[in-house]
Amino acid sequence: MAPKREISIKDVKVDDSFWNGRIGNAVEKAVPYQWRVLNDQEPGAVPSHAVMNFKICAGLAEGKFGGFRFQDSDLAKWIEAAAYSLLYKDSPEIRAALEEAVSVIEKAQQPDGYLDTYFILEKPEERWRDIAHGHELYCAGHMLEAAVALFQVTGSSRLLQVMEKTVNLIRQVFGEGEGQISSYPGHEEIELALMKAYRATGQEAYKELALYFIENRGAKPGFLEEPGFQNASKNRWFQASYHQAHARIREQETAEGHAVRAMYFFTGAADAALETGDPTLKAALEKLWENVTRRRMYVTGGVGSQGEGECFTIDYDLPNDTCYTETCAAIGLAMWALRMLRLEPKEEYAAIMERALYNNVLSGISQDGEHYFYVNPLLVKPEVARFRRDHQDVEPDRVKWFGCACCPPNITRTLCGLGGYIYTRKGDAIYQHLYIGNTGEFETEQGKARLRCVSSMPWEGKAEIAYSGPDGVEVYLRVPGYGENFRITKAGAPVSFTLSQGYARLCPQDGDAYTLSFGMKAQYLQANPQVLEDCGKACVQRGPLVYCAEEADNGPLLNSFTADLSQPPVLETSPLFGGVTVVKAAGSQIDWEKWPANALYAPAPAPTRPASLTLVPYFLWNNRGAGEMLVWMNAR
Amino acid sequence: MAPKREISIKDVKVDDSFWNGRIGNAVEKAVPYQWRVLNDQEPGAVPSHAVMNFKICAGLAEGKFGGFRFQDSDLAKWIEAAAYSLLYKDSPEIRAALEEAVSVIEKAQQPDGYLDTYFILEKPEERWRDIAHGHELYCAGHMLEAAVALFQVTGSSRLLQVMEKTVNLIRQVFGEGEGQISSYPGHEEIELALMKAYRATGQEAYKELALYFIENRGAKPGFLEEPGFQNASKNRWFQASYHQAHARIREQETAEGHAVRAMYFFTGAADAALETGDPTLKAALEKLWENVTRRRMYVTGGVGSQGEGECFTIDYDLPNDTCYTETCAAIGLAMWALRMLRLEPKEEYAAIMERALYNNVLSGISQDGEHYFYVNPLLVKPEVARFRRDHQDVEPDRVKWFGCACCPPNITRTLCGLGGYIYTRKGDAIYQHLYIGNTGEFETEQGKARLRCVSSMPWEGKAEIAYSGPDGVEVYLRVPGYGENFRITKAGAPVSFTLSQGYARLCPQDGDAYTLSFGMKAQYLQANPQVLEDCGKACVQRGPLVYCAEEADNGPLLNSFTADLSQPPVLETSPLFGGVTVVKAAGSQIDWEKWPANALYAPAPAPTRPASLTLVPYFLWNNRGAGEMLVWMNAR
Repeated sequence: MAPKREISIKDVKVDDSFWNGRIGNAVEKAVPYQWRVLNDQEPGAVPSHAVMNFKICAGLAEGKFGGFRFQDSDLAKWIEAAAYSLLYKDSPEIRAALEEAVSVIEKAQQPDGYLDTYFILEKPEERWRDIAHGHELYCAGHMLEAAVALFQVTGSSRLLQVMEKTVNLIRQVFGEGEGQISSYPGHEEIELALMKAYRATGQEAYKELALYFIENRGAKPGFLEEPGFQNASKNRWFQASYHQAHARIREQETAEGHAVRAMYFFTGAADAALETGDPTLKAALEKLWENVTRRRMYVTGGVGSQGEGECFTIDYDLPNDTCYTETCAAIGLAMWALRMLRLEPKEEYAAIMERALYNNVLSGISQDGEHYFYVNPLLVKPEVARFRRDHQDVEPDRVKWFGCACCPPNITRTLCGLGGYIYTRKGDAIYQHLYIGNTGEFETEQGKARLRCVSSMPWEGKAEIAYSGPDGVEVYLRVPGYGENFRITKAGAPVSFTLSQGYARLCPQDGDAYTLSFGMKAQYLQANPQVLEDCGKACVQRGPLVYCAEEADNGPLLNSFTADLSQPPVLETSPLFGGVTVVKAAGSQIDWEKWPANALYAPAPAPTRPASLTLVPYFLWNNRGAGEMLVWMNAR
Repeated sequence: MAPKREISIKDVKVDDSFWNGRIGNAVEKAVPYQWRVLNDQEPGAVPSHAVMNFKICAGLAEGKFGGFRFQDSDLAKWIEAAAYSLLYKDSPEIRAALEEAVSVIEKAQQPDGYLDTYFILEKPEERWRDIAHGHELYCAGHMLEAAVALFQVTGSSRLLQVMEKTVNLIRQVFGEGEGQISSYPGHEEIELALMKAYRATGQEAYKELALYFIENRGAKPGFLEEPGFQNASKNRWFQASYHQAHARIREQETAEGHAVRAMYFFTGAADAALETGDPTLKAALEKLWENVTRRRMYVTGGVGSQGEGECFTIDYDLPNDTCYTETCAAIGLAMWALRMLRLEPKEEYAAIMERALYNNVLSGISQDGEHYFYVNPLLVKPEVARFRRDHQDVEPDRVKWFGCACCPPNITRTLCGLGGYIYTRKGDAIYQHLYIGNTGEFETEQGKARLRCVSSMPWEGKAEIAYSGPDGVEVYLRVPGYGENFRITKAGAPVSFTLSQGYARLCPQDGDAYTLSFGMKAQYLQANPQVLEDCGKACVQRGPLVYCAEEADNGPLLNSFTADLSQPPVLETSPLFGGVTVVKAAGSQIDWEKWPANALYAPAPAPTRPASLTLVPYFLWNNRGAGEMLVWMNAR
């Protein structure tokens, strides 16, 4: 049984005017669509071959392995998303698809528990020989997350039994005993999955393996003497740091290497710190958190400044046009933030989690729920993105699916699993971090507590929160850093509260209904002057939303506009996208019709004219075709 | 004999307070140093093997080919530079070295005239089979330029005789006749060399071969069906446009592909247009000139916006930090401008030639004359340049020599051959484009005319020009576009003149001494608003010199400064670099000591304080160690 403080995905159901449509798209469109893609039944999409690989292993079909060596993880992420989707729509078709998937996986599993279809079909003699790049542990991790999701949502432990066998095999293969491999995953993921399985089942073996991988990481030789690593590491972007294996975690001063790997690693390590209570591990994570969020993170919550190696670069290096800022990395940052909140509920962690979710994560999927971004830049000029080598990862148009399809199912599982990000618990105290409409149920010592939230976020700083349940349950409500005049009232009367690390502490009684309100003005932000690319510029944020200018609203040459910081940005309700709050930024623009004809350079000052830009929330960009976009405006 | 209108390199000798030290460095240091490098006798430098390759071909040594396949061109460029250096210092050692080089080359030449050491030693069966990338015609072109230089300076035609044989072989191999190869060089260079040889010797065969290559370029298949091209062109940066072979020259609307190749091609084509008088070729060049200089050129006269393919990208795409702006490409732009001046003397061409020479060319060599830049960026943050993939071509420190050593001998021949850029002729009319101190002698119908110029440029807009010679010779003096209140006086009295396309027409008499003067104020320039990277920014130019800010003078975080365009930049005489004019730019800077501690983003406006930057001429950057540098400052 799960420890009591654990919140199961089943306990929190989102019902929110902002998110319902997005979750609905994921449930109604993405989950069925992705199942067809994974079965190679979607005509427009790049063939996935993911299900077929399992069928071949199961003896249900003939053929050769297809796709990337980590293709199994696409099916795993889909299972996780599909399981969560049942919370919102109990679809017989999706239940049947899940049954079918699990049956095939059961049959594909080898007698000793081994499950990776790439190695089964392509390189049966080379199991566990390319830990650095083989992705066997990565795929096992995602399948274990899928198994936990299925177990939590449907109660079915069939896939969990499959994965228990796989994990037992991994525990035999890896370790410090004789004949065991002393190593750690080339792509972290299984650590956090093992911690999830431990928290869902209470079985110590999961936790022990996770701790082994986390604590052993960075030990030499690990995988660092494997031929696969040696070969790849001739490229300077594929050194040990690419895998966060350049040092033990407590000796890592900065977040290095592949951003998704780093986020997944730190997520699993934070889970471990919570379970072990080890203050040195917590301190290491706090140091890395500070490095990421105060030196290496875009204002959109994006991480990963460079496409080559999909990696962190150096402190304050945040180019806006050539960044990588992969959707999956922002998801990873949100996952890590959630674990930091479990370790210690601090408003800062919630703010970063919210920043990632409402900006770089949500920008990864289109309004219609069917088109994706892998890379989420903050500055785009489409003709430059199409031409230049250093923009090769930047898509100026959203795409339906990717050959390397990690992001689409990752967004889908995040949307369908959004309820998991709203609350954490500290014993019987319940912390609400995100004002997303939902109903949550929490078993406590005193009995079952229920919270119901109706929210106007992110468009208005207002939420109604109703409590039902026993006395004596503490509820901590986040006081967002950006909120002005944060107030809580009950039946119109102000409620006084104590503030603890950015949370308002309440001790509600059954039937209490609170109204939260706070001002959210659109605000110009500037970046630390160490960020070369943002010097002389400003962006607009309102509440959790970062805004951007698009060519669709403003015409081209967006960078010829200069915002006047002395004029606050003005809010406007717009019919765009079914009704959103847009922002008008006032300033001046180079009057390019008066620019000397045909001149490349001319004496200053260039002729200007008063102008204003209409800004839309960043997550909405590129829903109206390719065009220029920028987040950081010239400013004075 | 050369046609009378031709100015030989021997006719103009530079003697100028600004340039003497630089030419002296080239003559005294670079020419002997490079000879040692080419002979693998310089301990610190990457072994060149260039002379050794010829020695092996000559049977004077044993061994294998070493270096790049175009290694021969390094020796050729050195011969050209060394020949020019004799004009400034008639060194017996250099004469002996030249004798030795020519003797080895004579012996290395094959009986049929073939000369390329790479193919002789490495691939004797594959002559003329990899025209796209083999560089045989490129190397022959440079050796022909060297031969012309030696002939013009020393009167020795030994190398010219060698190259006449080589050219005769090329004329047999290439052409439209039966058994001939219908093609054109993969790397242009021989076209301009052939035109030089034609102008120096009057032999039509040189001109005919040049015209064939120029006019045939872009014809299919040319080299486009060669395996070497097919293989390379799988990379999108190595298509036909990389070689300017995507269309015939008259159909080329924009400058495409490898920037050095393009510049060399257009240089040779402009030579051809002059000799043929073909107005359609001239018009094509004017169109390409406009594209390059009004859409694709940095303010420093640099061309080539991208390292991958060392190429032009798209109109107005001028990133300041990741640019290529190879020293050799700027030299090529100056060479092309000189030919456009011969075609039609217009101030615009001289201004671009001067811009390239005083900025992107001169920045390629250090003050000590011994350290080089291949890439000349306009924005550098050393730690970013060292780390990021898209900065891999940017060296934050000057280097002594390059494995691919095209630039060092190219700068050396340009410095030693600088006299060739000062004047052009139109019949007996003499045009002076650059105010560089010199004495020039010109044979005219009326007899020998002499001009002597003493100049204070680029620090002051002042020059003394003395004429001696017959009456009836027209002298056109450039009125620089940046010059204010341009005046000519004779014995203190104003001289009136007519203005023709930016040149003041004089008809001097023997003994006339003119004083030219014009104001040169430091001026803020802005870039066309289509240039995304420069929007909201300004740079400072004074006369021909573009200025930059360096960390050495201003501390770090240069981009946190914003120039106030309402305050004109102020000139200051500085003891730096033995005495130069620096510029003070007034404005404000983010007061980063007051920036909220440890914050990555914070509400605007950031605290600022009044500040000023000291700007030094761009060509002087990075003579005081690695540090931040920028040309384009934030401005308001």
